[in-house]
Amino acid sequence: MTTPATRWAILDGQRVPHEGATVHVSDLGLRRAFAVFEIFRVEQGVPLFLETHLARLAHSAGAVGLPLPRDVDALAGDVHALLEANAPGVTAVHVLLSGGPSDDGVTLEQPTCVITTLDLPPRATTVTGATLITHRHTRELPEAKSTNYLSAMHLATTMRAAGAIDVLYHDGVDVTECARSALAVVLDDTLVTRRKGVLESVSMTNLLGLARERMAVEERAITLGELRAADEVLTTGSVRGVVPITAIDGRPIGAGTVGPHAHALSTAFAEHVARYVAARRGGLAAETR
Amino acid sequence: MTTPATRWAILDGQRVPHEGATVHVSDLGLRRAFAVFEIFRVEQGVPLFLETHLARLAHSAGAVGLPLPRDVDALAGDVHALLEANAPGVTAVHVLLSGGPSDDGVTLEQPTCVITTLDLPPRATTVTGATLITHRHTRELPEAKSTNYLSAMHLATTMRAAGAIDVLYHDGVDVTECARSALAVVLDDTLVTRRKGVLESVSMTNLLGLARERMAVEERAITLGELRAADEVLTTGSVRGVVPITAIDGRPIGAGTVGPHAHALSTAFAEHVARYVAARRGGLAAETR
Repeated sequence: MTTPATRWAILDGQRVPHEGATVHVSDLGLRRAFAVFEIFRVEQGVPLFLETHLARLAHSAGAVGLPLPRDVDALAGDVHALLEANAPGVTAVHVLLSGGPSDDGVTLEQPTCVITTLDLPPRATTVTGATLITHRHTRELPEAKSTNYLSAMHLATTMRAAGAIDVLYHDGVDVTECARSALAVVLDDTLVTRRKGVLESVSMTNLLGLARERMAVEERAITLGELRAADEVLTTGSVRGVVPITAIDGRPIGAGTVGPHAHALSTAFAEHVARYVAARRGGLAAETR
Repeated sequence: MTTPATRWAILDGQRVPHEGATVHVSDLGLRRAFAVFEIFRVEQGVPLFLETHLARLAHSAGAVGLPLPRDVDALAGDVHALLEANAPGVTAVHVLLSGGPSDDGVTLEQPTCVITTLDLPPRATTVTGATLITHRHTRELPEAKSTNYLSAMHLATTMRAAGAIDVLYHDGVDVTECARSALAVVLDDTLVTRRKGVLESVSMTNLLGLARERMAVEERAITLGELRAADEVLTTGSVRGVVPITAIDGRPIGAGTVGPHAHALSTAFAEHVARYVAARRGGLAAETR
């Protein structure tokens, strides 16, 4: 419907047709899963929380040992240029930093950065409960948003069969994070989420700011027992926003319906995003006046 | 020196120039590390233990949930065709089965299989001791040879600084396997190696057959304490063959020199490979007569 005639991508700073955004099979990102990435929504042409996502990309790169071939300001320029080239109809951007071609399959030479736009379904505008499945697994180098999703991909069929939207990882004692989102629980009107040993979630950082205006917030580990006994559970991520969780592994959470805190936080998050977009669009309008 | 004028690769059964062996950035192998592979040596035009490697590729694919787009007989034909096209000078073959392009970055559509030749340095002909470093880590889905090497890549600099050739993983109690090879220890003239919860090593399978002709063999877990106290340690893999390990984390194993069992097994392995190559070359010669 709104797909532009030519869809572009940016490969190491150069505009290329989307179909031409390829890497060689000798790329360490493909051959050794030596790659980190970011994905973020675009609303009304505004890339949501772009600076925070690019800062996290730089942090992920440092954590796994990949040098960033272009600085974050150059990458931000690339993203804006790509959005202009592909507008309208873009709903998300994917930035991949890959190890780059390596003839021996081991030695790092020059990393590659590829920016593509995605046409994901828009974020849900109604607050609806969803379900999770759990799996015992700890991500490698959890502070990095690496491309290592093998467990999640392996569980994709099980997840879909269960009607679940994500896989919640735990270590047998504590829950950590979902494969594609961060998790928080409500216990006695307190929002509890783990921030150590997990990916620093851009959405959760935003959500905690909003939550502190309305309720107590604790940043600490959550046991599997607390998860089962929680009054409410929610996930948040850059693609889906805030999603109330009403059942885990087929067992209802609380009353098995969307709770008041999750509902309020979901709405507050949507409003926060709308304010962010309005402010950036105002800035863009001012710039082009 | 012996590089052919055009180097070829095989992409989903089709011959393409090596430089053209690319995948799109939307490929799940790149975006979600949803890929498995095999690498094996080629000696005098003979791909070493080809059938065993392709059988393991099929097993890995099943373990992670990737359908094999071409059956192993077709893949074997691809390998032979590629060796003929790129001969001489090929020392190894890499077969990558990747999740394939996926516009939403999650949904599996059609996996891609890419076969390339590598020009690795030849296997060492002298038996020399090497060193390892250790790292606490358990590979995801260890029975699959997946491309998930994030920990190994992250440790590459540390490993090189230590002069080590590989990283030995352990779970805090038992050792499991190296990032790129299998491990065995000699305890009281018995060769001990773990076969469960680790990748089924093609080289180790071959080596155990040879070892049983000369010494007792036990297949079981090895504790970190046993590793430190072992009389001898060795690794084996398809790229390097059998390599005696004379130090781990800077501490000598046994006398800190190549022990008699490791030396004998290394020699026996090289002879086994030579017999395999001679038999296959005989077969090839008979076929073409």
